[in-house]
Order: sequence, then C-alpha cells, then structure tokens
Amino acid sequence: MPRPSPTREAPRRGRPGYDQETVLRHAIDLFNRRGYDGTSVGDLARELGLTKSAIYHHFPSKSYLLQAALTEALDALEEVVDTAATAGEDSGPSAYARLESVLRQAVGVLVEHLPAVTLLLRVHGNSDVELDALRRRREIDAKLAALVRAAADEGSLRADIPPELTSRLLFGMVNSLVEWYRPEGRYDAAGVADAVIRIAFEGLALRGE
Amino acid sequence: MPRPSPTREAPRRGRPGYDQETVLRHAIDLFNRRGYDGTSVGDLARELGLTKSAIYHHFPSKSYLLQAALTEALDALEEVVDTAATAGEDSGPSAYARLESVLRQAVGVLVEHLPAVTLLLRVHGNSDVELDALRRRREIDAKLAALVRAAADEGSLRADIPPELTSRLLFGMVNSLVEWYRPEGRYDAAGVADAVIRIAFEGLALRGE
Repeated sequence: MPRPSPTREAPRRGRPGYDQETVLRHAIDLFNRRGYDGTSVGDLARELGLTKSAIYHHFPSKSYLLQAALTEALDALEEVVDTAATAGEDSGPSAYARLESVLRQAVGVLVEHLPAVTLLLRVHGNSDVELDALRRRREIDAKLAALVRAAADEGSLRADIPPELTSRLLFGMVNSLVEWYRPEGRYDAAGVADAVIRIAFEGLALRGE
Repeated sequence: MPRPSPTREAPRRGRPGYDQETVLRHAIDLFNRRGYDGTSVGDLARELGLTKSAIYHHFPSKSYLLQAALTEALDALEEVVDTAATAGEDSGPSAYARLESVLRQAVGVLVEHLPAVTLLLRVHGNSDVELDALRRRREIDAKLAALVRAAADEGSLRADIPPELTSRLLFGMVNSLVEWYRPEGRYDAAGVADAVIRIAFEGLALRGE
C-alpha cells in the first residue's frame, strides 16, 4: 500500500478546526444561536463545511454533543461549589468568606465557559441528557443555598431576607452574565466579580444616606 | 336552516379553553417547555385536543402566537420603564426613587406575566418577529441603563461600579425570576421586590461589620 504523498496529506492536516474540540465549540455556538431543538447535525455540518458523516466521525449523535457541553459547564460549577463546601470543614474560613469566594469563582467559570454555561442555563428537560443536567444543576443550587444559609446562621447576613431567596437572587445576578457578558467587551471577570460582590454585600446606596 | 338545538350547542359552548386567549396561554407554556423551534402547531393542537385547523381559526400562524406573547411582555415592561422616565421630568422624584420604583414594578410585571416574559428572555433572534422583539428589548435595556446613570449622576449610588454594569446586574437579578419563581411558591411579588431592593441598595452584609 503506497504511503500517502505529502501533497495528499497536506490539505487534510492543514485545514484548521476539524478536531473533536472544534466541532464541539461550533456545535455549542449553533445550539445557543438557534436553540438545540432548532439545530440539526446537517446544520452543524454546513456550518463547518463538512459532511454529516464527518461530524459523526467525532461524535456519535447530536445528543452526545449536548452532553459534552453540559458536562463541561456542570463540572466547572460543581468544582467551585464543592471546594467552598470542603473549605468550611475543620474551622476553615467563615461561610461569609466562602460565599464571597464562590460568587467570585462562579463569575470566573461563567466568563471562561460562557457558551457551555449559556447552553446549560437554557436546557428545557426534553431528553434524558437534559433531565440529568437539570438534576445536577439542582444539586449545585441546593449547595449554594446551604452556603447562604450557613452565612445567615453564623450571623454574617441580614436576617430579613430568607436565605433561599437570597441565594436565588445572588446566583440569578451571576447567571445573568450569559445574557449580556461579551468577552470582547469592557469588563473582565475580576471587574464583574468585584461589582457583584460590592452590590451583594454592601449595596449600591452611598453609606450615610 | 334549523337553529342548533340547545343540546347540540351545549357541548361546544361548555367545553372550556377554546377561545383565543386560552390557545395563546397553552402555546406560551408549550414554547417555554419545549422551545419555540421545538414546538409545532400540531403539538399545540394535540395539547389542546384540537385539530390544527381549529388552532388556525384563532391564529394565522405559529409566528403570530409568538408575536402576541412577546408583545404582551414588551408592552408591560415598556410601560414600567416609560412611566419612570416621565416621572423624572419637571423636578419629579429623584432618579434613585425612580430606580427603586422600576425595580419593584419590574418584579411585578415578571410575576404577573411570567410565561410571556420567560419566552421573551429566551428569544434567539431566528426570525423577524424575534429580531423585532430583541430590538424593543434593547431599547428597554437602554432606558434602564440611563436611569441607573441618572441615579449615579445625582450622587445617590456608589461611584466605583460603572452604571452600565450596575444596570446589567440589577436587571439580571430581576430577570432571573423567570428561572426560579413559582406562582404557587412561598414568595409573592412584594416579598421578592423587597428582597431585590434591600440587596440592591443596602446589601446583605450586616451594617457595622
């Protein structure tokens, strides 16, 4: 069997963006723009200038692409939440300090994994893959609520807002990044995290009013 | 032509939920659960136990249903924002007071029109109807940002967060209601609005820390 000549090999190796990772990035982008249900593997193939079978070479199904995206987002968020929970054992930092740290790191995850988290936050629960992601999301939300409750219980937070409602609103503020944050925009993750933490803990009104 | 007998008329008039408004409510609910692109008029007909032609008797197209839903949400939000803007003319209430009022009323609109606003906040821009809704949303966002800027300019808000970023985060917190608010849950609109305003202006940390 003849070895492929360099000239035959070159075009294939030289065309950028046909590894598994690139197919996944384009898929996430397309799912976010058109909705997962509104996107077919044929749409993705056209977007990449590939055949459908070339897509299937990398991923066995559209659902597998979705699962890979959701897992990326969930793993990153879970790590932030679980690190904060573990740090609280054996008289570690206060719940207040851990809540501040989680808010900061959650903003970091959203900025770093923006397309995957955007997809996660729009999941409807139309399939087993989506239902599984929603289950993991609920576990994360429950751990966040427990952390807010711990900060309230240690007396660090005002007592006139139920901790569960505080948790919804705080992480609602963080999650809103998927709607408006633009990587090429004027704010970096640290700047957004500072603003979130200032509003959340200190509020916007000038002191002494 | 014989008049329909009462017994023939009764089942038609007695079956609930086949007026235009009810078809729209079911359509919005289905769009939110499955995604607009993932829902067909056939799905809606099945959901209501109607034929497709019975649906088309009420609405000329799926896109018309979407437009009706988005218009409901946008009209309600625009009214809140425009009322706040008008109130500021002729030395009316301060921008700070108007911002507080807009936050409270925006929570009210989200609670009252939750399904329609949920649909609005998930629009992708896949059609002229969606693009038009996104354009109106951007106008609302710009007016909200202008109000936050006016409150900052009058010296009511801390100066270390850019007003545009503050606006994104505040209304991100409000908009998060579409993700977690349940009408049958433990919080009413006034309770959520109080919590939003306390966090936004006073912050969660106990004073004097």
